[in-house]
Amino acid sequence: MSQLQRIAIAPSQLQNQQISLTKEQQHYLGRVLRLREGDRFIAMDGRGKWWLAQLATEQAQVLEPLTVLTELPVSITLMVALPKGNAFDEVVRCCTELGVACIAPVLSDRTLLKPSPQKLERWRRIATEAAEQSERSFVPTILEPVAFNAVTANVTTQRYICEARGEYPHLKNVINPASTEMIIATGPEGGWTEKEIENAIAAGFQPVSLGRRILRAVTAPVVALTLISASCEV
Amino acid sequence: MSQLQRIAIAPSQLQNQQISLTKEQQHYLGRVLRLREGDRFIAMDGRGKWWLAQLATEQAQVLEPLTVLTELPVSITLMVALPKGNAFDEVVRCCTELGVACIAPVLSDRTLLKPSPQKLERWRRIATEAAEQSERSFVPTILEPVAFNAVTANVTTQRYICEARGEYPHLKNVINPASTEMIIATGPEGGWTEKEIENAIAAGFQPVSLGRRILRAVTAPVVALTLISASCEV
Repeated sequence: MSQLQRIAIAPSQLQNQQISLTKEQQHYLGRVLRLREGDRFIAMDGRGKWWLAQLATEQAQVLEPLTVLTELPVSITLMVALPKGNAFDEVVRCCTELGVACIAPVLSDRTLLKPSPQKLERWRRIATEAAEQSERSFVPTILEPVAFNAVTANVTTQRYICEARGEYPHLKNVINPASTEMIIATGPEGGWTEKEIENAIAAGFQPVSLGRRILRAVTAPVVALTLISASCEV
Repeated sequence: MSQLQRIAIAPSQLQNQQISLTKEQQHYLGRVLRLREGDRFIAMDGRGKWWLAQLATEQAQVLEPLTVLTELPVSITLMVALPKGNAFDEVVRCCTELGVACIAPVLSDRTLLKPSPQKLERWRRIATEAAEQSERSFVPTILEPVAFNAVTANVTTQRYICEARGEYPHLKNVINPASTEMIIATGPEGGWTEKEIENAIAAGFQPVSLGRRILRAVTAPVVALTLISASCEV
């Protein structure tokens, strides 16, 4: 099983086996995922069609269609504030089982500890094993840890930030089941700071609730993924 | 916070501060939960009303109404085939956070190991801590481990059994959001045996799927609880 990154494309972007990439997709593939010309990735149209593609500069060449039965029709990027100790292992394992496409470990105001490169290696190994065990077609991408504020600046996809306190709508009530891409952020033990929530809202994140009880930092991503996958999977 | 058991009652069962108990409720309180005359429990009507009640023989006396903000309107009993090692700790912790009312560890054909009394003590301690941390009003009941086949005989509530293989409907599509009581069973690593599924169906369990990917035994209960609570909580 290959560890290929994937992006969602609009059906209109594909013509004659060529995918014309938007500026944003070029940025995402090149800067965020660090792919170079000639690297391969997966393009999906969110309606069950998947293609193996090869990156050129402003476009990509379709190499072959892919048959996918166990993947979600939506590409979910999970931004998780890093919990203490080894708790992130379990987040990676569970969320891989639940169909996540990309996990971005984030450093928040309440979790500043930068993990070692060995940890990143470990999470990628866990993701690979969990993808196999859960019979997925692809291994999710685990990005290098980034500061939460750095990430919020550059996104235009549908995006949510989970917050336990405050009168926010329940995630289940705001998900658009027809979405092809989605970003969801869950906080550290103790929650996001007020400033982080404000910044996230300014960057277009919608604050949402996961229910009336206070969830641990390791439970929240699993709950969020479950709700999104149940909404989007037929 | 007290570790009180709870049952759902129909509004018509309550008259003049007296709850007339059905034969089934008497059996459940006396035989399953092992309450005696004079013991206290919680009665809930599934519409947000809760009462502290005291057991008599065929009825119960209402002692006082309770204010509850963080509890689910449905009383969920989770039957979990015991996983190996300490993995059940995490199931108890997560499912308590998610609002479960009662957890029944079950011995299945593929998990015959009977846990020690120390383990049961440990799970009850974990449930108490998790209930406090998640700001619940009540601590879920952890029953003594029982054989799966023994449990299936005596239930008449709405009930589901999760099974990864086979073409079963998704749990999200079969939950009745107005239910006040529900039983859900999740299997061991390797899944239920065919015979167990057959027996469960004969006992009125509806087999359901939790999605297209294969979940670990420790992830499935968390996913099931998330889906039920999201369906039933307003």
